[in-house]
Amino acid sequence: MTQEMPKLEVCLSPALLHLYDTTDTIVVIIDVFRATSTIAAALHNGAKCVIPVASVAECIEIGNRTPDSITAGERDGKVAEGLEYGNSPSEYPRSFVEGKTLVLTTTNGTRLLHMVKNAHSIITGSFLNLDAVSDFLLQQKRNVLLGCSAWKDRFNLEDTLLAGAIANKVKDQFNINCDSTRAANYLYERSGGHDFTGFLKDSSHYLRLSKFGLQKDLEYCTTANLHPVVPILKGHELIVHK
Amino acid sequence: MTQEMPKLEVCLSPALLHLYDTTDTIVVIIDVFRATSTIAAALHNGAKCVIPVASVAECIEIGNRTPDSITAGERDGKVAEGLEYGNSPSEYPRSFVEGKTLVLTTTNGTRLLHMVKNAHSIITGSFLNLDAVSDFLLQQKRNVLLGCSAWKDRFNLEDTLLAGAIANKVKDQFNINCDSTRAANYLYERSGGHDFTGFLKDSSHYLRLSKFGLQKDLEYCTTANLHPVVPILKGHELIVHK
Repeated sequence: MTQEMPKLEVCLSPALLHLYDTTDTIVVIIDVFRATSTIAAALHNGAKCVIPVASVAECIEIGNRTPDSITAGERDGKVAEGLEYGNSPSEYPRSFVEGKTLVLTTTNGTRLLHMVKNAHSIITGSFLNLDAVSDFLLQQKRNVLLGCSAWKDRFNLEDTLLAGAIANKVKDQFNINCDSTRAANYLYERSGGHDFTGFLKDSSHYLRLSKFGLQKDLEYCTTANLHPVVPILKGHELIVHK
Repeated sequence: MTQEMPKLEVCLSPALLHLYDTTDTIVVIIDVFRATSTIAAALHNGAKCVIPVASVAECIEIGNRTPDSITAGERDGKVAEGLEYGNSPSEYPRSFVEGKTLVLTTTNGTRLLHMVKNAHSIITGSFLNLDAVSDFLLQQKRNVLLGCSAWKDRFNLEDTLLAGAIANKVKDQFNINCDSTRAANYLYERSGGHDFTGFLKDSSHYLRLSKFGLQKDLEYCTTANLHPVVPILKGHELIVHK
């Protein structure tokens, strides 16, 4: 049976992506703090779609020509100049975001998303949609690559922890011979599978974002299953998979 | 006090080395299966020095012009064509290796060693010299980068586990704000700090080398402190640090 199961691998950094063949694979983009958390929140709260873009200029340009759009993105913990909103999932309640197009610029997550070639599909994962993403992968029965966005190519604990959480939930249905996946799963087991906030309080990114006063955001982003949707890329837009 | 302590970081793959500044840093090259294990064994058993080289051709050439030399290296688990010996630490007892120059070609470990620039010093680490390397780092009081050789740039469990073991032993004397180090330390704690062989039996490299009938080698390479020396690079030669 093992041979017939699809395989699951974890890529710990965009700088390692070239080592993986993503052809006909489902790639899960993970950027826990905070791009893929914000994407889950906005789509679950009724946004029409999210357009992830790399630069502030592109964000403004697309925003200008898209009706009912919101331009959003941060640099160094503050709303980037020329944009209207930030990169916090709590900024996008239903009352604000419903029916709108969120044009979102982030650094690490967007970059990884645009690097992936020839995938069967690209979805985004976060703690906020952990079970929804895991269930989707179980249903699809295809090879999976869990792609951690990392921080300027450096390994980070929060994206790897989520990769481990997903791997742990689906591992019986996948062929896993990948040390990154084993390590991610060990991290998840070590975290106890709950209180992800507590586990990550010692991480580099948590310490960095805490300095910007973003503790509440970090707690929000590490809450499991608040926004049970599967954002999937169609063309340039992330929409809810139905 | 924290500010005055040197820092310690872990690099999980040669493909991530460019993210780290190794200037004036002690770099520990880690290639548990099996280059840096063999280096510790040969030097502890009295080899005059070990010359790590990248290619089989270079190995033969240096061997030809070096008196009392042994040329060694494997490709795909077998002694490479044109060389005399393999890459197993158990092949180098004192009765054979004492006073000789071991010219050793390996892929992952040697490549990483040659990639490091401007380091204060380069040493090699393995489970066989775990405490010796840890004690050396504690004495030197300098910035440290633990460099995992990985497998064709892919993260591996055994090198990261050793990095975690070293980090765990020295962490009170270093400033650590590096998620790779945190993850490596969690792996080490998960292993229980003993029976590294058992912990690694599920790893990709263990499974791969087991197919070549190398289980005994793998057990040897995961035995702590059998060869308590610190191999240090002087010019092109690794010698015992005194």
